Amino acid sequence: MQSFEIDKTDLLRIKTALEGDDADLEVVLQGYHASEIAILFEKLPQEAKERIINILPTDIASEVISEMDEEHHPGELLVNLHPEKRSEIVEELDYDDATDIISQLDEDQQHEILKDIDQEDASSIRALLSYDEDTAGGLMNSEIIRVNISLDKKGALDAIIHQSEEMEELYTIYVVDEHEILKGILSIKTLIKARADALVSELVQTNFVYVKADVDQEEVARLISQYNLTSIPVVDDGMKLLGRVTVDDIIDVMEEENTEDILKISGVSEDEELSGNWQDAVKSRLPWLVINLGTAFLAAAVIRHFSAVEEKLPVIVAYMSIISGMGGNGATQALAVTVRRISLTDLSDQQAYRTVLKEFLVGMINGAANGLILFVFAYWYDANPMLGLVLFLAMTGNLIVAGLTGAGIPLILKRVGIDPAVASSIIITTFTDCIGFLLPLWLASKVLL
Amino acid sequence: MQSFEIDKTDLLRIKTALEGDDADLEVVLQGYHASEIAILFEKLPQEAKERIINILPTDIASEVISEMDEEHHPGELLVNLHPEKRSEIVEELDYDDATDIISQLDEDQQHEILKDIDQEDASSIRALLSYDEDTAGGLMNSEIIRVNISLDKKGALDAIIHQSEEMEELYTIYVVDEHEILKGILSIKTLIKARADALVSELVQTNFVYVKADVDQEEVARLISQYNLTSIPVVDDGMKLLGRVTVDDIIDVMEEENTEDILKISGVSEDEELSGNWQDAVKSRLPWLVINLGTAFLAAAVIRHFSAVEEKLPVIVAYMSIISGMGGNGATQALAVTVRRISLTDLSDQQAYRTVLKEFLVGMINGAANGLILFVFAYWYDANPMLGLVLFLAMTGNLIVAGLTGAGIPLILKRVGIDPAVASSIIITTFTDCIGFLLPLWLASKVLL
Repeated sequence: MQSFEIDKTDLLRIKTALEGDDADLEVVLQGYHASEIAILFEKLPQEAKERIINILPTDIASEVISEMDEEHHPGELLVNLHPEKRSEIVEELDYDDATDIISQLDEDQQHEILKDIDQEDASSIRALLSYDEDTAGGLMNSEIIRVNISLDKKGALDAIIHQSEEMEELYTIYVVDEHEILKGILSIKTLIKARADALVSELVQTNFVYVKADVDQEEVARLISQYNLTSIPVVDDGMKLLGRVTVDDIIDVMEEENTEDILKISGVSEDEELSGNWQDAVKSRLPWLVINLGTAFLAAAVIRHFSAVEEKLPVIVAYMSIISGMGGNGATQALAVTVRRISLTDLSDQQAYRTVLKEFLVGMINGAANGLILFVFAYWYDANPMLGLVLFLAMTGNLIVAGLTGAGIPLILKRVGIDPAVASSIIITTFTDCIGFLLPLWLASKVLL
Repeated sequence: MQSFEIDKTDLLRIKTALEGDDADLEVVLQGYHASEIAILFEKLPQEAKERIINILPTDIASEVISEMDEEHHPGELLVNLHPEKRSEIVEELDYDDATDIISQLDEDQQHEILKDIDQEDASSIRALLSYDEDTAGGLMNSEIIRVNISLDKKGALDAIIHQSEEMEELYTIYVVDEHEILKGILSIKTLIKARADALVSELVQTNFVYVKADVDQEEVARLISQYNLTSIPVVDDGMKLLGRVTVDDIIDVMEEENTEDILKISGVSEDEELSGNWQDAVKSRLPWLVINLGTAFLAAAVIRHFSAVEEKLPVIVAYMSIISGMGGNGATQALAVTVRRISLTDLSDQQAYRTVLKEFLVGMINGAANGLILFVFAYWYDANPMLGLVLFLAMTGNLIVAGLTGAGIPLILKRVGIDPAVASSIIITTFTDCIGFLLPLWLASKVLL
């Protein structure tokens, strides 16, 4: 099976079926997986989506809604359904999915949805709504299988079968005491293989990884990845079991965080939707460009300051554009490596120092190599070895600055608690532009005039 | 528990223990998880690593080795061990991990390792070594639980318990016929809950997602993420079951692919190790910088071509640096959004066309907004409204070029089968630099001189 892409055939099939009666539509829909219908929804008008949700069995309908991308507003679809159908769907949803969808709505709409559903479900969802969505608490699902540590094998298996009614996968079983305090984990394999009279307290694995509810989702992803977990339990400050975060939620988090990293490093605001419209793109990018324009005026001021040099040595203008551009490229390289490294591991002071030192060396060598090419070119084309020397020194100097700032600025920003991906590229461009103009012009003014 | 970071205390504790006898060292090591020891290994000399591996129980030793980053050469550590210990460790490793590690070695070393181990294990690992490491076949693990479709509940449970001896997690059970042809999947939950006389053929789920062994790992990641799977079966062309890829392998793939994306978009070669030394960094980045230097000469040629304009209107030099710099920024924004979008979804022709159109609009609006600021500044500071008009038009034009190329070039590269992240930024910088100088100079030559 290949990854699903909407092609015209599928869309046409659905659209034709939408013109027919419900029975026909139902047959066509049976040919699609819920996550495929969620993708088809991106291309269908609101009425069509509502009609399809109403026709689908509740379990498929809730899966479709939970698979819809946030940017296609599953919450609004839910709000517009008939209250009875809506309550069925919401009760069928996993708590964490229900919470994600409902959190997109305003308070009145949230109340509207929650007042009609089973009150136990409603209070669980309300509890989840209270966590920041970027934390373990916001990611976790509170529907988990828990067994009391005092049970025996048969009691535990019965409890698991009873609780697994609404669960797709068993993953790990959590072992708690009578106060719901997490005591350990139990794999279903261990339980199945145990002798008939074994006790949970003998089988429980008490050395396990867990997180507090307020831990950031990036940290949760790092733990799951580092310890190769399929799920991680979430507890409160008193070790009371609140829920678990599963690895499939983490995959979505990683995609989201990685998109954010790439966008931020490129001066796009992190919440720009990749498939958003042009209005949103302008809103997300124009502010960065205007800030950049401000810093570009600084570099322009350097050029104006040395107008006498440019007048007497017009050829310097072409060269300084090369030097500042190369500085930008070198800085981007150092920045990408450093930002990515920071986002995967926390660097110690010593590692941070070594990183900056490494980028200094790399900048110096790459600068000297490219500076040498400029020297040769200026010697040969402009027959001006002294100009060549100035260019060699300026290129080397600017690539050193590029390396130092490309590695140093994100590390400094991280230390003072600012997201290194956001502001780095603007600050660094300013440096390499200004120094890229300043160095050749100033050196030329000393040596050549 | 927090994500593990090496701090000086841990390192000091290990180093002190390394000076003592094996018994002391063993006690200290017991305080660490295998994945933590793997991280500590990054800071220890070769002899220390070998000694620790020899002391650790085989199951922990093999886990440590499988957790070591490729860039810290777990294979070499393995090669240097005593053959007997080495064989024990290799036999304990999951086949996919063993294959990853052994594939890093040269053929003689591979042979050396495989000749001493259990020959069934060796032939499984040899089979896995034949797949490209970036495909489903290269990622998959062939140790999976399979039950024959003709069994009943008790027979299936017995088969599972028998086969699960060496497996950490049960995940999904695969159902095959007598020719090992994959017939469907079976969740352990369904099996436990089934009545005692149920048959596997009644319980099997025949509608499932699978991949062929030669499918690219990015596609595997996309399927696992799209269908929220914990594992996906891998089959050959005749639907014979070969193995499965689990979600925890996919997390590593995603991290790797995302690092590559960020590096490539920034002109760093994708295999530069984030924590590598300066020699490797120079090797990975200098070629890109030299290519960039070549293209920068193009932009410089534009500047030289219009030297008359610069002479008569020196102030244009400062402004054109602003316009080309802003073009680079705008292009980077469009490029980041487009490259990230391409890497998450395949765009239809129509979606591709709309993306380029959107970036055209965004470029025009952002260009006009920034161009207006330049106009006002030139009017006020240089008292030259016609210059302001030239700058307004040049800025707008260059940001349109930036948007068109930033979105268009990666889409074109993707169509012709070139990785869009690699070459895009170089090609695009060339465009925005050249046009950023050409537009203001050419317009000025027409309007102002």
